[in-house]
Amino acid sequence: MNLDIISIGDELLIGQTLNTNAFWMSKQLNAIGFAVREQTTIADVEEAILSALETSLSKSDVVLITGGLGPTNDDLTMPTLNKYFGGSLVRDEKVYQHIEKLVTSRGFRMNENNKSQAMVPDNCTVIHNANGTAPGLWFEKGGKVVVAMPGVPYEMKVMVSDQIIPKLKAQFDLPEIINHMVYTQGVPESMLAEQIADWENNLPETIKLAYLPSPGRVKLRLSITGRDRDLLQSKIDHEVEKLEQLISKHIYSEENEDLASVIGEMLLKSNKTIVTAESCTGGYIAHLITRVAGSSAYYKGSVIAYANEVKINDLNVSVNDLDSYGAVSKGVVEQMALGVQQKMDTDYAIATSGIAGPTGGSDEKPVGTVWIAVATPDGVTSKKYLFGKQRDVNIERAAITALGMLQREL
Amino acid sequence: MNLDIISIGDELLIGQTLNTNAFWMSKQLNAIGFAVREQTTIADVEEAILSALETSLSKSDVVLITGGLGPTNDDLTMPTLNKYFGGSLVRDEKVYQHIEKLVTSRGFRMNENNKSQAMVPDNCTVIHNANGTAPGLWFEKGGKVVVAMPGVPYEMKVMVSDQIIPKLKAQFDLPEIINHMVYTQGVPESMLAEQIADWENNLPETIKLAYLPSPGRVKLRLSITGRDRDLLQSKIDHEVEKLEQLISKHIYSEENEDLASVIGEMLLKSNKTIVTAESCTGGYIAHLITRVAGSSAYYKGSVIAYANEVKINDLNVSVNDLDSYGAVSKGVVEQMALGVQQKMDTDYAIATSGIAGPTGGSDEKPVGTVWIAVATPDGVTSKKYLFGKQRDVNIERAAITALGMLQREL
Repeated sequence: MNLDIISIGDELLIGQTLNTNAFWMSKQLNAIGFAVREQTTIADVEEAILSALETSLSKSDVVLITGGLGPTNDDLTMPTLNKYFGGSLVRDEKVYQHIEKLVTSRGFRMNENNKSQAMVPDNCTVIHNANGTAPGLWFEKGGKVVVAMPGVPYEMKVMVSDQIIPKLKAQFDLPEIINHMVYTQGVPESMLAEQIADWENNLPETIKLAYLPSPGRVKLRLSITGRDRDLLQSKIDHEVEKLEQLISKHIYSEENEDLASVIGEMLLKSNKTIVTAESCTGGYIAHLITRVAGSSAYYKGSVIAYANEVKINDLNVSVNDLDSYGAVSKGVVEQMALGVQQKMDTDYAIATSGIAGPTGGSDEKPVGTVWIAVATPDGVTSKKYLFGKQRDVNIERAAITALGMLQREL
Repeated sequence: MNLDIISIGDELLIGQTLNTNAFWMSKQLNAIGFAVREQTTIADVEEAILSALETSLSKSDVVLITGGLGPTNDDLTMPTLNKYFGGSLVRDEKVYQHIEKLVTSRGFRMNENNKSQAMVPDNCTVIHNANGTAPGLWFEKGGKVVVAMPGVPYEMKVMVSDQIIPKLKAQFDLPEIINHMVYTQGVPESMLAEQIADWENNLPETIKLAYLPSPGRVKLRLSITGRDRDLLQSKIDHEVEKLEQLISKHIYSEENEDLASVIGEMLLKSNKTIVTAESCTGGYIAHLITRVAGSSAYYKGSVIAYANEVKINDLNVSVNDLDSYGAVSKGVVEQMALGVQQKMDTDYAIATSGIAGPTGGSDEKPVGTVWIAVATPDGVTSKKYLFGKQRDVNIERAAITALGMLQREL
């Protein structure tokens, strides 16, 4: 069953407002078995609305529209839909009383703009807007459904969850959909594809596989659609089991995308603590860890050691090693990890030292060179990486890679 | 001049990934004078790609496409465009060498997937991808331009800024647009609007004003469009001058949105140094400072003191004060700032201590309570804030507010 989403608003087209409505609706509607065929964002102009609506109705069974339902003259969704479906505008008493209650409770009098919002097409079902003045409009034509809603996110969300989804479920015979995620770290997309090529080529046709890369990570998504949820789940489980055997060392979770949360849960369970000593990542690892609610239970703190004197005074790094090998070296990064582990008296510690760029590189140590060390109760391990040229991305990749190294030690 | 944006990817349609690409591109292209007519999001399926492309080309002069250019089998944009424009795939030596360099520098071998990414249509201009393996493809047909780019945001953004925008500017006769930004910190949107209401109501009709709020900040954008750049500039300058007189104390910059960069320039000029001591912000202020290239010239380091023992041992906070007043108190946050300033021997220091949430609040100190201190060569000042209930937003608002306090001291 196909579904289209049309978002109406100039603020979306000039890049002033991020379209979180289409994202949120897609997630909800996909979860109940609709295939979202297309998301379209257009201006609040009659011609654009009619053209988008016609295209969508020719290809999909349901069209959800947000925006352009406000009380002012530049809101054209309602008159345009009324024209398209050939209705007349009539005053809806329930809507009028709801608007009047909202307006007067805010200490204002009803004005012409408010009154006009109670005028609705006589050939649609009105959807109550618990959180605002603009009602939703549910039209039907030839077994297809078009719903217009206000663009204000918290008004739209309550309408969709409480009214639109139950009505759609009742009206359409929807399939079951299962999306299973596998989160990997420490292996590039092309290499991962090579390692699982045989498995991928032998996947049953009903299962779709997608690769979703981001700095330092690749997510794999297996999807299946059908009627019998148990059967679908067993098919997915069967394939996931084979996949896990192939790439177990790269998988950090199948439930939680946030690596810092995954590590947090492991530390909580084993009642262990962690600290960091960061040079090139400059506090970003500490931020990723402390962004997680409840992290104070296992995270004690960090020393961000940008200057060499901080490495020496606060982390006990050897002056000789700094002079002989430089700050970006195996010896220094291991001393940083051990130094902060001892100083803050914890079980685990992560340390980073590298050249984030864009300047500061040399032939021997180009921009993107990063040493990462992980100290555990049993000792310290470290590894050298060569990332890219972009400062932001290097900081992110170094942080994610460091968390990945720690997770493999846990 | 109309422009369409087509985003390709199932992850967008199932509501797994928020479409920040279309948002970012719309902003950039609108700023150089294009009218973004439509944003369309579709699946990585030949029929959908061809249908969207035909519609867009019939109504717009430029079509920008992202996604579906990866090295794996589920990426169909390249073969589909090649078919549409009637070209043949040929190996591009420059692209091949770039991919080989990237792959081997990461310690991997070239595999078939990597090699296939160097096969490009022979009737397009290849756009170099500095940060990844998938090249961009620039096609032309009947005076219209179609550009395909990878969907990975940091790869796409560099391509658009460095190559696509200059090429589009050279090829199309675009109107002049001036967007003048005014960045404010420390005043809520509603308060700001009240302070500038008279000025706003008397703005000439040609100048448009937008309020763009984000945690802790409000950006004001004045825009004007026309042909004579000097005339447009003088009109904007005239209004900005009046605005500056009204809200000078809230403005931190009119050129640089990044408050940490603005502070960095001030520190560099005055040859001063800074450190931070963070509790509730957990390294986020350090991250904002070190994200700026060249920050090692004025930033020495930080102590992230989540645990009280770290506050006591590493920042010299009084055990008595911690016991009597708690970690979230004026005395403790001032001692943290002075402690790290002395320990790392710097001119300035920022310290934060608060309850980020979602738990840990009390009647006396609810979630969102944050103390911020700034130590200068002349002493220390501190202030208590009450932010909201959301952990992420509290961390960001506390960090931005702390940087704003420092900036007013500099």
